[in-house]
Amino acid sequence: MRTGIATVCLSGTLEEKMAACARAGFDGIEIFEQDLVTSAMSPEEVRSRAADLGLSLDLYQPFRDFDGVDDEQLSANLRRAAAKFTLMGRLGIDTILACSNVATATRGEDDILAAQLAQLAGLAGDHGVKVAYEALAWGRYVNDFEHAHRLVQAVDHPNLGTCLDSFHILSRDWDTAPIENLEAAKIFFVQVADAPKLSLDVLSLSRHYRVFPGEGQFNLAKFMGHLARTGYDGPVSLEIFNDVFRQSDVTRTAVDAMRSLVWLQEQGAAWLASAGETERLPLRMATLPRVPEPTGFNFAEVKAASTPAVETLLGQLGFTSEGRHRTKDVQLWTMGQARVVINEAAPEGAEPAISALGFDVENPLLASSRAQQLLAPVVPRKSQADEEVFQGIAAPDSTEIFLCQGSADGTAAWTSEFGPGAAGRGGRRPGAVIDHVNLAQPWQHFDEAVLFYTSALALEPQPFAEVPSPTGLVRSQVMDTSNRGVRLVLNLAPLIQQGDGVHKSYQEHIAFAVDDLVATARAARKRGLKFLDIPENYYQDLAARFDLEPDFLDTLRELNLLYDRDADGEFLHFYTATVGSVFFEMVERRGGYDGYGAPNAPVRHAVQYGQRHSSP
Amino acid sequence: MRTGIATVCLSGTLEEKMAACARAGFDGIEIFEQDLVTSAMSPEEVRSRAADLGLSLDLYQPFRDFDGVDDEQLSANLRRAAAKFTLMGRLGIDTILACSNVATATRGEDDILAAQLAQLAGLAGDHGVKVAYEALAWGRYVNDFEHAHRLVQAVDHPNLGTCLDSFHILSRDWDTAPIENLEAAKIFFVQVADAPKLSLDVLSLSRHYRVFPGEGQFNLAKFMGHLARTGYDGPVSLEIFNDVFRQSDVTRTAVDAMRSLVWLQEQGAAWLASAGETERLPLRMATLPRVPEPTGFNFAEVKAASTPAVETLLGQLGFTSEGRHRTKDVQLWTMGQARVVINEAAPEGAEPAISALGFDVENPLLASSRAQQLLAPVVPRKSQADEEVFQGIAAPDSTEIFLCQGSADGTAAWTSEFGPGAAGRGGRRPGAVIDHVNLAQPWQHFDEAVLFYTSALALEPQPFAEVPSPTGLVRSQVMDTSNRGVRLVLNLAPLIQQGDGVHKSYQEHIAFAVDDLVATARAARKRGLKFLDIPENYYQDLAARFDLEPDFLDTLRELNLLYDRDADGEFLHFYTATVGSVFFEMVERRGGYDGYGAPNAPVRHAVQYGQRHSSP
Repeated sequence: MRTGIATVCLSGTLEEKMAACARAGFDGIEIFEQDLVTSAMSPEEVRSRAADLGLSLDLYQPFRDFDGVDDEQLSANLRRAAAKFTLMGRLGIDTILACSNVATATRGEDDILAAQLAQLAGLAGDHGVKVAYEALAWGRYVNDFEHAHRLVQAVDHPNLGTCLDSFHILSRDWDTAPIENLEAAKIFFVQVADAPKLSLDVLSLSRHYRVFPGEGQFNLAKFMGHLARTGYDGPVSLEIFNDVFRQSDVTRTAVDAMRSLVWLQEQGAAWLASAGETERLPLRMATLPRVPEPTGFNFAEVKAASTPAVETLLGQLGFTSEGRHRTKDVQLWTMGQARVVINEAAPEGAEPAISALGFDVENPLLASSRAQQLLAPVVPRKSQADEEVFQGIAAPDSTEIFLCQGSADGTAAWTSEFGPGAAGRGGRRPGAVIDHVNLAQPWQHFDEAVLFYTSALALEPQPFAEVPSPTGLVRSQVMDTSNRGVRLVLNLAPLIQQGDGVHKSYQEHIAFAVDDLVATARAARKRGLKFLDIPENYYQDLAARFDLEPDFLDTLRELNLLYDRDADGEFLHFYTATVGSVFFEMVERRGGYDGYGAPNAPVRHAVQYGQRHSSP
Repeated sequence: MRTGIATVCLSGTLEEKMAACARAGFDGIEIFEQDLVTSAMSPEEVRSRAADLGLSLDLYQPFRDFDGVDDEQLSANLRRAAAKFTLMGRLGIDTILACSNVATATRGEDDILAAQLAQLAGLAGDHGVKVAYEALAWGRYVNDFEHAHRLVQAVDHPNLGTCLDSFHILSRDWDTAPIENLEAAKIFFVQVADAPKLSLDVLSLSRHYRVFPGEGQFNLAKFMGHLARTGYDGPVSLEIFNDVFRQSDVTRTAVDAMRSLVWLQEQGAAWLASAGETERLPLRMATLPRVPEPTGFNFAEVKAASTPAVETLLGQLGFTSEGRHRTKDVQLWTMGQARVVINEAAPEGAEPAISALGFDVENPLLASSRAQQLLAPVVPRKSQADEEVFQGIAAPDSTEIFLCQGSADGTAAWTSEFGPGAAGRGGRRPGAVIDHVNLAQPWQHFDEAVLFYTSALALEPQPFAEVPSPTGLVRSQVMDTSNRGVRLVLNLAPLIQQGDGVHKSYQEHIAFAVDDLVATARAARKRGLKFLDIPENYYQDLAARFDLEPDFLDTLRELNLLYDRDADGEFLHFYTATVGSVFFEMVERRGGYDGYGAPNAPVRHAVQYGQRHSSP
């Protein structure tokens, strides 16, 4: 499939955008008019720069408000078109996108529209260029793709075709199946965009909230399937107006964009396969190695320049030190099947932070290959000849994700690389597992993170929640596997907490599940653990909300435990103090409870905020 | 009028919120349940803290999903209510807000709802508290204020009344006139909120985008007028769920909130006055000194540690140095009626920045008094006994605004305090005036700034525009006077450009209007001015868009002038290079052109971006 992207998706100058698109591996780009007008490069320079970068210039856009006007306006519009067609000649671009008229149309009869489009097509023919006519969802008279296609067929001119944009179809909840009835030769260009389901007017949604495929809620697999059936073989190009992408690092955004197109091809192919069609050659959809979802967490890693505070917390929680790695500056701590690696190789002064996660997968090499084809950056990790080689990739927030060999009994072969104290560890002993990990995401990379974990690591995004905190609402996005072996919570922290937006200035945590939280908490208290101190008002509110046994409520209060209940079961949990940017949580799931104690999150945020602000 | 605010409007802990509300001068507050539940203060401590601060605790809220349920759920709800009523006794709060049921209601018949509300009222009576029943706009069965009031009348219990919230009425575009038909004794509480006109679902609008009165587009003056006519005399309290306020500095937000209620009283009184009712005693609306809008800019001030770069720019533009102030470290530069003060008293290393603006007003003392009653912070400026005393206030972005004595001939008496070189300056000489000033606003204080300039300085917000730049969309909000004597453009820069959100890390400018821009530009070029370099592509696009004379186009190109045209006239302008965070613009308005060349703003942003990124 020929991949493309409109320059309006990205931040920076036209030079910077072109360089980023080439680095990310796009075949071609659409030149957004404003990017050219504001550029110091001449059209000829743009053309030669693109050639040097190996990028084809596939589309010039947009040409607005041409059709359905009165005669005087039509002359002016044709004059304007001629200037742009000449410019395209200098750029070496053969197709221009013409949007259906929004602002100046006064006549909507099909024969008038067709006659005017025929004039435009004739003029385009004189200049040796083609016009791709697109129905905007908010067009004055033409706002659906079938109408635009009918007009193109009525004109029947070799220099006039249509442009399909998934946004203008799916934002209006229209069926994409009629795409199959379109004449492939008349589809000159295809743009794809995703968007969240917001009950916002479609124009605002389009201008600010479009996202790359896989980051929103459109059914683009079906769109691609129907498109493939037409026999269309041209570019599939991203046109995403997004307030965040427009101000984020251009190189990263281009990679995120390319990842979405790689993923989209797999989705389209899968949709066709589910309909019994294994190959649709025209679109030549690239395929990726299919890998099953991860089965669980293999380990979590905390990195720090000084590690005693983390060691103390883990010891008090009931973890056992399994010694040091025989060649690396890392320690292993275990509790049941929960493994925490403490990495001592942090730069001087670096506070403890979550640095890596291990996922159990069936085939680490295959999973790594898939992730790399989805443009995941590889994380090199030195290993000696006789040590397990970890396949590592970097997540958008720079957390390292290692794809580890899962095992039937929950053991991890690499633990044998630790000292003699580690003998026998890590089997299916009763006890703890890593229940979930909560990672804070910088605001610029939240959508990117969702697509990354979806596409490269086969996690599934769940509906998000918003949790009040003293410094603002925290957007909380659960990503998990169907068996709940891996549960990841991505938190979008309020801006004011985000520091410079790159370095972690907010808290993250690792949660361990145990069978008997009360016993675990009592034992931890005996070992001196300081629990996050839960206010008495919370327990009074619990009593008002749930009909709890007084003894049970007293136990919760005594041990600073939090409680939640839903139709499927109960949830008990507690938190430790924070060291650096890390704290730990212990949870017990009773019955079929599948949540994370969301009603208690505001209490946790408030108490942690109070501690940060009262400490000297 | 008794002023109030819900703690959910603000960031921080309950202690911090209460302290900020007291400092801002509120009479009372509403305790939002989550703020109490997450607080380490006991209810008794909250009560005594409020007493110490002189704040009354006017409302406990919210109590959700009580009415319209089955019998089993009703028992549970009554048990939950009893616990909250007991808690209110400890807090010393006599009124609780009960929202109409959203989640659990299954029965919507009025007689059932009334019977259940009667049970709640009876229970409240037993505890000596009152229930204010509020129709949420998205309530399952009860979603309008008249329906809620009818149920309250049907129950007819002294412990049951209604709560009116402007949001739930105006977000649905309902008429507020029927408020007059409500029984004042049954209105237990009034909440006010404003909101922008977004075509978003009403629940999302409510949860994220509410703003303080005067910062949105609701007709709250009419709401207040109808409310006053009922004879209601209780608190008028703010309940604003806003993603930005929730993460902004609590003290500033509380001041912004209080300002909105002071302004709201004036608006309500004015609405009644326009209907011939000069006084509505029940609500006791406070009045402010009425002052006419400012007539023009008196001066603009640029502050820097090192001033030669600014002096050079002004000199090249055609400004004349009028010498130094006789006692202060400031210089005066003039061109026609445009006066620029260069303030040399900046800390070492401080780059040039716009530090102050002078507005011509009819009565500086009265205008200052009004602004101070609207909680504008006073800016002290030292003056000698024989010097003009400036009335200064600080805008939300810390720009100092001085209220200066306007004069019929455009002169400014204070200019006589400058050296002998200043003789004869400042009269109605032909030449330049300050056309507009463009100030960048930190994201946390944008709404606050709009209300500040509206209420304290009588500027009018115009519909905002969004301008693409290489680092994101720039939201641009024009605030002006009806005679266009003062035009201020507030720019909300993309986050990534905002640095730490407090210090100015983006560019601002002062624009001067002249009668003959081409002549001004030629003269400036002779004096060595470096113009902002406009790309050739821009002129080619101009030629495509407008049918311009080739000679005229060549002149524009030769002098790096930008051009715009609308139905009312034409606009020519150019920009200087930037020094520190300041640059200057020269404009010529032809005919009735009333804009700012918005179509050219992306070019300016792109060229400035290119210069920042290419400089070493």
